[in-house]
Amino acid sequence: MKATFYEGDRRFSVSEKAISTPGAGEVRIKVAYCGVCGTDVHIYHGMMDKRVSTPVTIGHEMSGEIDAIGEGVTDFSVGEKVVVRPLDDRGAQASDKGHHHICKDLKFIGIDSPGAMQQYWNVPAFTLHKLSPETDLKLAALVEPLSVACHDVRLSGLNDGEVAVVLGGGPIGLLVALVARQTGAEVYISEVNPKRIGLARELGFAVINPAETDPVAHLREKTNGFMADVVFEVAGVQPTLDIMTELAGIRGRIVMVAIHGQPKPVNLFQFFWKELQLIGARVYEREDYDKAIELITKNELPFESLITRVEPLQDIQRVFEDIDRQPDGMKVLLDCQA
Amino acid sequence: MKATFYEGDRRFSVSEKAISTPGAGEVRIKVAYCGVCGTDVHIYHGMMDKRVSTPVTIGHEMSGEIDAIGEGVTDFSVGEKVVVRPLDDRGAQASDKGHHHICKDLKFIGIDSPGAMQQYWNVPAFTLHKLSPETDLKLAALVEPLSVACHDVRLSGLNDGEVAVVLGGGPIGLLVALVARQTGAEVYISEVNPKRIGLARELGFAVINPAETDPVAHLREKTNGFMADVVFEVAGVQPTLDIMTELAGIRGRIVMVAIHGQPKPVNLFQFFWKELQLIGARVYEREDYDKAIELITKNELPFESLITRVEPLQDIQRVFEDIDRQPDGMKVLLDCQA
Repeated sequence: MKATFYEGDRRFSVSEKAISTPGAGEVRIKVAYCGVCGTDVHIYHGMMDKRVSTPVTIGHEMSGEIDAIGEGVTDFSVGEKVVVRPLDDRGAQASDKGHHHICKDLKFIGIDSPGAMQQYWNVPAFTLHKLSPETDLKLAALVEPLSVACHDVRLSGLNDGEVAVVLGGGPIGLLVALVARQTGAEVYISEVNPKRIGLARELGFAVINPAETDPVAHLREKTNGFMADVVFEVAGVQPTLDIMTELAGIRGRIVMVAIHGQPKPVNLFQFFWKELQLIGARVYEREDYDKAIELITKNELPFESLITRVEPLQDIQRVFEDIDRQPDGMKVLLDCQA
Repeated sequence: MKATFYEGDRRFSVSEKAISTPGAGEVRIKVAYCGVCGTDVHIYHGMMDKRVSTPVTIGHEMSGEIDAIGEGVTDFSVGEKVVVRPLDDRGAQASDKGHHHICKDLKFIGIDSPGAMQQYWNVPAFTLHKLSPETDLKLAALVEPLSVACHDVRLSGLNDGEVAVVLGGGPIGLLVALVARQTGAEVYISEVNPKRIGLARELGFAVINPAETDPVAHLREKTNGFMADVVFEVAGVQPTLDIMTELAGIRGRIVMVAIHGQPKPVNLFQFFWKELQLIGARVYEREDYDKAIELITKNELPFESLITRVEPLQDIQRVFEDIDRQPDGMKVLLDCQA
C-alpha cells in the first residue's frame, strides 16, 4: 500500500509499505478520503516538531471502510463505512473529572500516533463511528471538522432565534456558521479575505468585512441594539479579541475556538459590566460526532461547497505547497483510494 | 437631620438639612448604619468625579427603619426594618434582555443619585427588602456586599464538595469565601496582606500567601491534581490573572468579580485547552438579596468579624482618612443614628 510520511523541513515522502494485521481491539480501515486540517499544515511548517517524531504519517479528517477486524472486536464488520474520532483517551484519570475528550494524557491520533494519510490504517475500535451504507465518503471526510463546529455550538448554548457572530470565515468558521444557522440562529460572519467573503455570501450568510465596515456599529444597527447572544472567536488574532467583547450583548457568550499561543489583552471590564461569559471549546465528544454524522447523512447543508479540491494521495507534497500558495481555500481532500 | 456630602478633592462636609417628605412611590428611611464600600473610597479619591456631581451624599451599604410612607406605597409600614437594593433600573429596555440589574441605563443609587450617609434617606419603594424585626441592623449593613458574594457564587454554579479558590482576601473576597464554604465547597484564599491572612485564618480558611508559596503547586498537592472547580478573581491585579487559569482544573469556572479598567493579558490557550469558562459577575439580583438576608437573619456565619469598626456619621472625614492609612481593614460602618 501507499503511505505518506512527514519527514520534517516541509517535506513529505510517499512510499510502499506492507499492509499490517490489526492488533487486538483494533480494526484496519481502507481509507477513502483524508482532509487537510490547519493542524496538518502547522506540522508541515515544522511548528509541532517537538510533538511529532519524524518520519510520521499524519492526518485525522478521514472516511473509509472497515477492511479487517482484530481479535476481540465484535461490534464491527468488514465493509462497513466508518469515520474515526481520533482521540485516544485511555490515559484518562480521575482528575480529568469525566471530561475524557480533553484529558491531560490525551493522545491525538494522527499527531501523537500514526494518522490517515495512507491507504490502510489500523486504529482502536473504540474510536469508530459507523456511517450508513449510502453515505458519501467525500462528505464524510468533513465529519471531524464538522464535529468541532457541533461541539462549539453545543457549548455555546445557542438557541433558535438568537444572534450569532462568527469571527473568521475559514473552514471551521463556516462550519460553525452552518451549524449555528441550522440551530435557528441569525448568523453574521466577520472576515477580511475576499475569496472567503465571496464563499460565505454564496452560502447565504450576512458578511461583515471589518476592513470596510465597523462590525460593532453595523451589528448594533442590524440588531436594534441587542447585539450578539453568542460570538465565536475562530480567527485567533488581536483585532477579533478586541471586538468580541464589543459585539456581545448583555450576558453574551463568547466561545474561544481559536488557539492563542501567547497571553493576549482581553477587555475584562466588559466581562464584568455586561456579565459576559467566555467558553473554551476544544475538539469534540461522542455526541458531537453523532450530530455531525446525522448532518452529513441528511446532506441538507451545502457541505459540497466547502470541498475546494480532491487530490491524489501521492501528490501530498504539491498539495501542501499549493495550500501555502493559496491559503484562502477551504477543505482539500486527499483521495487515498487511487 | 445630619447629612454628609462629598465635596471633591478628598473632602467631606457634614451639615444640618431639613428632613424631606417622601414623594409618590417613595419611602423615607431612618438610616441606622451605612458601610464604606471600596467604591465610596474611589469616589473620595476623585476617581469617579466624572460620574458624580458634587456636593453629593454617597453610600449604599445600609440598614434602617421606615420612617414615612409616600403616596401610593402600600406594601410597607412605618417602623419596619429594611435594606435598600440600590439599583434604579427604571430605564431598562428590551435590548437588556431581561437582565435589569445590569441594564444599560442603570442608575446606581448612592453614586448616580443621593446615598445613605445621612440620617434620613428617601428612596423608591421598589428598592426595599424587608428584614424581620429581630434582625441586628449592624449586621444588616452587610446585606449589600454579601449579596454581591451570593451573586458571584450563584453565577459560578458552585456545588457541594467542589474546590473553590478566592483570589484576594478583602471584604468581598472573604464574603465570597464564606458563602462558598456555606455552599459546601472546600475553600482556599490567596492573599498577601498579613492582617488579611490573619483574619482569613481565624475564620478557618486555608490561606495561601503567593509571596511565600507557589499557589499552583500547593493546590495541585492539596487536591491531588484535581485543581479548582471554581476560581473567584477578586483582587484585580495582573498576578492573579496570571494564576487564575493555572489554578482552574479541567472545565473550571473563573468568576470575574474584580474591575479591570484596562485590557490585560489573559492566557486564552488555557481556556481552549482545559475548556475553562470565564463568568463576568456584577452587583446582584433580587434573589441574591433574599439569600443574603436569609444568611444575615440566621446569623450562623462569622459576620461580626468582618466589621472592623463602627464610627459616628459626623466623623466621616476622619473615617475615610483612616481607611487610607490602614487599607487592610474590613468593613467600617458609619452609625447614622447618633
